Amino acid sequence: MGERALVVLSGGQDSTTCLYWALREFGEGAIEAVTFDYAQRHRIELQCATQVAADAGVRQVILPIDTFRELGGNALTDPRVPVGDVRPEALPATFVPGRNLIFMTYAAAYAWQNGIRHLVTGVAQTDYSGYPDCRRETMDALQATLNLGMDADFVIHTPLMNLSKMQTVQLAVELDALPAMAMTHTCYNGRRPPCGECQACLLRAKGFAEAGVKDPLLMT
Amino acid sequence: MGERALVVLSGGQDSTTCLYWALREFGEGAIEAVTFDYAQRHRIELQCATQVAADAGVRQVILPIDTFRELGGNALTDPRVPVGDVRPEALPATFVPGRNLIFMTYAAAYAWQNGIRHLVTGVAQTDYSGYPDCRRETMDALQATLNLGMDADFVIHTPLMNLSKMQTVQLAVELDALPAMAMTHTCYNGRRPPCGECQACLLRAKGFAEAGVKDPLLMT
Repeated sequence: MGERALVVLSGGQDSTTCLYWALREFGEGAIEAVTFDYAQRHRIELQCATQVAADAGVRQVILPIDTFRELGGNALTDPRVPVGDVRPEALPATFVPGRNLIFMTYAAAYAWQNGIRHLVTGVAQTDYSGYPDCRRETMDALQATLNLGMDADFVIHTPLMNLSKMQTVQLAVELDALPAMAMTHTCYNGRRPPCGECQACLLRAKGFAEAGVKDPLLMT
Repeated sequence: MGERALVVLSGGQDSTTCLYWALREFGEGAIEAVTFDYAQRHRIELQCATQVAADAGVRQVILPIDTFRELGGNALTDPRVPVGDVRPEALPATFVPGRNLIFMTYAAAYAWQNGIRHLVTGVAQTDYSGYPDCRRETMDALQATLNLGMDADFVIHTPLMNLSKMQTVQLAVELDALPAMAMTHTCYNGRRPPCGECQACLLRAKGFAEAGVKDPLLMT
């Protein structure tokens, strides 16, 4: 496998920052992006991801996942479940069990077929303690599993893992990724311009405020 | 989570044997089966799985996976690739990278949602050395990953892991699962009655012959 990298690109602030991180680390021409179309309620996410990839000159593959819809019962794909709903296990209603495991395993399958060794994901354990599939410990275990299960030598990179939202904004500035932030989508309510009131909007706003940077998304 | 079990049921000889193993270990009423509809070339596999589950009185859920088709390039879903084709990595052409990892992760997601703790799969490292995602070592790593990623306490059972095909036939006899074998599907060429010439048919025939048992599938 060559020293090429596949970025899991959702079209959000974090994965877009990761795309620019990968461009710096691996160089232009060594990067591809994979975006999952899993019947998310907000189709705008997919458009954002495609726009971000095209703008950065990165090849993007979109893989459909219809299985989550059948598994059902989660807020991001099921319009019947309100976003604020709380699970008995104290996990947010937006939690799809194993969602990131599935994303990363599919990303690895695509990477395996295309001779790509490095996988990059924007998961972070800071600010996201409710998601057990976003922890580095989980990613370490998954990396071992993928390498055993595919006879491979994958490295899962999580450049945002221990960054606060403020630090992620600072990293985006450092990577000249700020203009691309205008193309990203964050709002849980799927609004553009963003609603400014959901947990995702508030978290994003807090990060930009603490970094002392104006969010380009709010200037468009 | 209760002491209930979810069996990954493909409709083949091995997973059907596992279904009967789980019925013995966990008891009737404590078992469910999950079957994946991943656009396999031979739709008869799905019919066999449904027939096996219904005959055993086990609730079956069918989950669609359309992502493999997009990933493409493998013999079991892509009619353009001949079964005998050999990959550069010496893996059989029927290998979908990470297929079992995906199956088991979806099974775990369904189990998580339904309060099921035990996952049962018919993978075996005997006779199948070409499939790295069938090894117990891989299943151990995956079990750790699933438990970290879903904050769960899953146990992955692989009752056939170290059995030869002959021993699997003997286990089926012991479990009174032999009649159900008439409903299973094995042939890589999708024939019923089986072609008797593909690798899967030959392996099955060898197992029954060595066990000194007549294959009920060939008596129908």
